Amino acid sequence: MPLSMYQASVPIFQKMLGNLSQILDKAASQAAGRKIDPTVLLNTRLYPDMFPLLRQVQLTTDFARSCAARLAGQEVPKVPDTETTIDELKARIDKTVDFLKATKPAQIDGTEAKDITFPIGGNPMTFKGQSYLVGFAMPNFYFHLTTAYAILRHCGVDVGKRDFLGALS
Amino acid sequence: MPLSMYQASVPIFQKMLGNLSQILDKAASQAAGRKIDPTVLLNTRLYPDMFPLLRQVQLTTDFARSCAARLAGQEVPKVPDTETTIDELKARIDKTVDFLKATKPAQIDGTEAKDITFPIGGNPMTFKGQSYLVGFAMPNFYFHLTTAYAILRHCGVDVGKRDFLGALS
Repeated sequence: MPLSMYQASVPIFQKMLGNLSQILDKAASQAAGRKIDPTVLLNTRLYPDMFPLLRQVQLTTDFARSCAARLAGQEVPKVPDTETTIDELKARIDKTVDFLKATKPAQIDGTEAKDITFPIGGNPMTFKGQSYLVGFAMPNFYFHLTTAYAILRHCGVDVGKRDFLGALS
Repeated sequence: MPLSMYQASVPIFQKMLGNLSQILDKAASQAAGRKIDPTVLLNTRLYPDMFPLLRQVQLTTDFARSCAARLAGQEVPKVPDTETTIDELKARIDKTVDFLKATKPAQIDGTEAKDITFPIGGNPMTFKGQSYLVGFAMPNFYFHLTTAYAILRHCGVDVGKRDFLGALS
């Protein structure tokens, strides 16, 4: 079966978000073992004008959710940025995965040439579906996902690339 | 036109590697302006058991090159890991982009169900082309690319996500 817009997006988001949730579990458990306040991890940044871990995780879910919604021609569900704990971030990830599960191949496939318009930095921008997916949503998703991972590694959390990639098949 | 294995891989690698090369230019120029030895940047790690910037850039090119070669059914071109300067890393990126330019859609398209076998951690692993691309090569590519960017940001290099993403269209 040819690569489809759905196969190139939704299952990947689901899998990588599941991996992120497990990485956050390891972070929580290791922080507890080392008597590190998990809030310290959530507020860690790699540089003062970069987003901290908490915001990186929120943005990772945002790029997955908005990509699936926009390709499917739906309003992007609004999610308030109110999390303050690892458990709350994991709940946000779960909610995102639920939304992705509810998004069906028939809603996403065939959207290669569909106009996707939304504001970037206040200005409306229009992509074709394919460019939006492979040239915008995916790089942004991986950007924030990897930065979240990198912040945890920088804090000494013992995870590896296998945790990031998850099961290979 | 439906999303193809080529469109989901080669042009993305080319574009993101071009962005990385420009980010390295900014790093070199800013390091010179601040009298920072660029070698310090190249040897910076986010944690002692993580790879330094130099290796992250090498690996970013490796995942792009090996993905294009394997999908195209070619031997992965061997590239010695001998770089020690930003200019040499940029030359490695250029060489990778040249290889990607020489890889044509007809060599990559239709490889969704093709068996891709190669060793991971010493054990032979077989993927279907599509899983290999979206579930292995892409996440690995973005993992090392984003970590390279994150190391430079951590060093205070003044670049932003727009440099990472490049021109949007």
